[in-house]
Amino acid sequence: MFVRNCWYVAGWDYELTADKPISRTVINEPIVLYRTADGAVVGMEDRCCHRGAPLSLGRLEGDDLRCMYHGLKFNRSGRCIEIPGQDQIPATACVKTYPVVQRHSWIWVWMGDAAAADPALIPPAVGFDDPDWILGSGQMDYEANYLLINDNLTDFSHLSYVHANSFGATEIWARTRPNITRLERGIRVQRWISGGVSEGVTRADRRAPDGMATEHWQSYDYLAPGVLLMQSATYPRGAQETFGGGEPDPSVIAPVSRNFTSQAVTPLTDRTSRYFFSWGPHASEGTKETAEAMMKVANMAFTEDRIMIEAQQRTLDTTPPRKDILTSADVGPMQMRSVLERLIRAENAAVAAE
Amino acid sequence: MFVRNCWYVAGWDYELTADKPISRTVINEPIVLYRTADGAVVGMEDRCCHRGAPLSLGRLEGDDLRCMYHGLKFNRSGRCIEIPGQDQIPATACVKTYPVVQRHSWIWVWMGDAAAADPALIPPAVGFDDPDWILGSGQMDYEANYLLINDNLTDFSHLSYVHANSFGATEIWARTRPNITRLERGIRVQRWISGGVSEGVTRADRRAPDGMATEHWQSYDYLAPGVLLMQSATYPRGAQETFGGGEPDPSVIAPVSRNFTSQAVTPLTDRTSRYFFSWGPHASEGTKETAEAMMKVANMAFTEDRIMIEAQQRTLDTTPPRKDILTSADVGPMQMRSVLERLIRAENAAVAAE
Amino acid sequence: MFVRNCWYVAGWDYELTADKPISRTVINEPIVLYRTADGAVVGMEDRCCHRGAPLSLGRLEGDDLRCMYHGLKFNRSGRCIEIPGQDQIPATACVKTYPVVQRHSWIWVWMGDAAAADPALIPPAVGFDDPDWILGSGQMDYEANYLLINDNLTDFSHLSYVHANSFGATEIWARTRPNITRLERGIRVQRWISGGVSEGVTRADRRAPDGMATEHWQSYDYLAPGVLLMQSATYPRGAQETFGGGEPDPSVIAPVSRNFTSQAVTPLTDRTSRYFFSWGPHASEGTKETAEAMMKVANMAFTEDRIMIEAQQRTLDTTPPRKDILTSADVGPMQMRSVLERLIRAENAAVAAE
Repeated sequence: MFVRNCWYVAGWDYELTADKPISRTVINEPIVLYRTADGAVVGMEDRCCHRGAPLSLGRLEGDDLRCMYHGLKFNRSGRCIEIPGQDQIPATACVKTYPVVQRHSWIWVWMGDAAAADPALIPPAVGFDDPDWILGSGQMDYEANYLLINDNLTDFSHLSYVHANSFGATEIWARTRPNITRLERGIRVQRWISGGVSEGVTRADRRAPDGMATEHWQSYDYLAPGVLLMQSATYPRGAQETFGGGEPDPSVIAPVSRNFTSQAVTPLTDRTSRYFFSWGPHASEGTKETAEAMMKVANMAFTEDRIMIEAQQRTLDTTPPRKDILTSADVGPMQMRSVLERLIRAENAAVAAE
Repeated sequence: MFVRNCWYVAGWDYELTADKPISRTVINEPIVLYRTADGAVVGMEDRCCHRGAPLSLGRLEGDDLRCMYHGLKFNRSGRCIEIPGQDQIPATACVKTYPVVQRHSWIWVWMGDAAAADPALIPPAVGFDDPDWILGSGQMDYEANYLLINDNLTDFSHLSYVHANSFGATEIWARTRPNITRLERGIRVQRWISGGVSEGVTRADRRAPDGMATEHWQSYDYLAPGVLLMQSATYPRGAQETFGGGEPDPSVIAPVSRNFTSQAVTPLTDRTSRYFFSWGPHASEGTKETAEAMMKVANMAFTEDRIMIEAQQRTLDTTPPRKDILTSADVGPMQMRSVLERLIRAENAAVAAE
Repeated sequence: MFVRNCWYVAGWDYELTADKPISRTVINEPIVLYRTADGAVVGMEDRCCHRGAPLSLGRLEGDDLRCMYHGLKFNRSGRCIEIPGQDQIPATACVKTYPVVQRHSWIWVWMGDAAAADPALIPPAVGFDDPDWILGSGQMDYEANYLLINDNLTDFSHLSYVHANSFGATEIWARTRPNITRLERGIRVQRWISGGVSEGVTRADRRAPDGMATEHWQSYDYLAPGVLLMQSATYPRGAQETFGGGEPDPSVIAPVSRNFTSQAVTPLTDRTSRYFFSWGPHASEGTKETAEAMMKVANMAFTEDRIMIEAQQRTLDTTPPRKDILTSADVGPMQMRSVLERLIRAENAAVAAE
């Protein structure tokens, strides 16, 4: 059900302070995260090998973590280095560790074979340190399987219905289809939209002078297990033709406005997920206040998604299974599901071959 | 476990307004209900055939219902008539509909074979439009299987214990037995009670002059799946003998007071049920205020039932199953259970024969 | 999973008043408890043999209990002695009773073969009527299996970590090991501690004059299914040597202070437990106020235990099972588990031999 050889977002780097471990569940596995003196992050199974107490209730002692039930102490490699009142430490007294990387303002945890943990597989999200973008951020918990959220994020036809209020999205999102390209570990979704893209609350951000006719370019990659990286840009009418319907070049035609969002869907358990997101304007076109105003809209919109998807999950769980009637808007979700299935099949085959 | 070829009460007709669909679960099946322009009620599976989103979160467009996840639109026959951004609509794109009838102020849904949905099988409940009765109404949700509520309503010996406070019921309810007759789809329960029937709060309704000796007639039908239709009447002492212990004729002896109650038990799931009820005086003997005062007592009494039955359900669920020790008061419950079992067996036999 | 031929603490005797039955679940079995006129306690299955309603919602009538659903009345032997409206009472109309004994301020229920219910097996807890001790009391519910609480109470190495705050326990508890002796139905745990035993809140109770060097004696029996009976005493430094490291004799050296605690862990269900406890000073060394101050600390400390143990239970329930890495501090827990396993095996063998 889950890809294991994969980097999952376990949290924002600002969630983990220097003084206290935290607990995170990823694909049903409880993980304790803590910082060492050099600022690195250690990830271990959140279960003491002694009697199963959570190490996240433990105490940081330098770069080591002491279980606060009976006092066993573990170093950053998960090795038990002290059993109070006992000189001998069994060689088996150790806790599984997980490869962890901090990058792009997220803490990424590798859930599969540690030998295969290649940081190059971390999706190129945009972090707070990127000078080109000014970002707000947030998170939201779902009572739903992560695939339903992936489906949502790989098919924007829902904007016209779910987000008619928050984003003021018009019917054009549902009535036209984007170009979708397969990637090695995901899909690329791109489109120009010429008509009224949205009305109301988010319009202000587009910075178009009164009466200017505009066109909207949107391009995102959706990468395993569930990371969305999207740039949106508004151009003066005619840009789509100038660029032959392809990707615009801001050095040829100056965009009216641009924004970027990084989003990550992390399965906590089979039926719960955590959704991390940042969004904001290009640094040359907005301020921290712009980003904050955009986050208000995002929180409203993502709550609309959550209400629909959690209701969908409950319906799927309480009615007999049956085959979906698919539409042409399902190309994105289906391709993304097939990417994940291919990765899971490959992992299973590798395990079977061992 | 459930009769399917049967009309279930899904709600009061006043619960369903013209502008918004509502969701109801009946025998584990989620149903969306909405009104068409002519005031009729449509019932459909509350699950879009596309990706399983609940249609009850959808938007009414004339007599059609649009799923507000990806915009598929369905007509009142459950047929998909629009997929935004796509010309072709697969013939399989449709949602199951349920026969629905509004009658006696209730919305009735047929859960079985639509071809067999005969409105003549709807029990003759008394609605608000009946000029003979002035009715208050209410509803209550149970964390219990509906059969336990049926058992309660087909054996009034519990009045003496469960309702000693609310109805002021005396021991006579438990110490005497009614006459019980089998009906095609239920049972008829009738009795005269000569002694003190009840004391306290409900006594006022009986309108007997001070010192008048009275007798009480009670007659109800209990019909599949769980509909109780009951008339109660108080007469001057001697009426029972005049009518030979049978049904009284109000044109021969004027009753002191009469009231009528319609009640329906609808299984939502295996362990939850909804209980709908109306009650009130004969139009010639009471007013809307009388009905409201009676509803206060009813709500108090039905809460007493709910507390006992939910506790019974929890006990049955947490202790090993065993055979009940039956008493002579269980004739009603046992006959009613056997009616339901016969109907279920007949349905299964019909399905097997196909 | 549970010993049956065993006395379980169902409650404090002060919880059961003369006028009202109460319900208690012990090892998954619901029990109704009530008092007869002579003050004795009756324990019956909390399930009417008629339709399964809980008898704890019933009405006490002299020494009998009437089910308040349909009125069946049971005597203290569990025999049905009245069915309202019916002369015949089936011989099978009876409810299982449990042997119950009130002793040491607790109500003890025997869950196994009634013929084997020997009051001599009741652990010698200290009740409120014991003139030697002044006791406060309390209770706490756990969302955890009782064995995890037994483990906690048979290994005090956790004091140094879990109770560093409440008891101000130092590392000495974890760094030294007590003497453990096997008993027929439990274990005996004893030790002298010479160094700083604890700091802060509980220190006041030890009544040592300023600057007096002290030693601490602690001895407890832990008896099936989960009863802890412990005396703690503080002596002037040197006492340990005087008594050869064994049990001190207060008539030879006067203790600075002594206290006694009785504690009982009762499994309610597989994953819930109730923890009863009393604690207080020797009557010659403290007052009711001392006992109350000690209960404040106890409640704080036992909450620390509960937080850790419930977290441990959740971790064990959500991670795959594996073998614990045991330490030398686990001798007490392992011996106590083996006592319970032996008792359970013996019961199963006796049942198989029948």
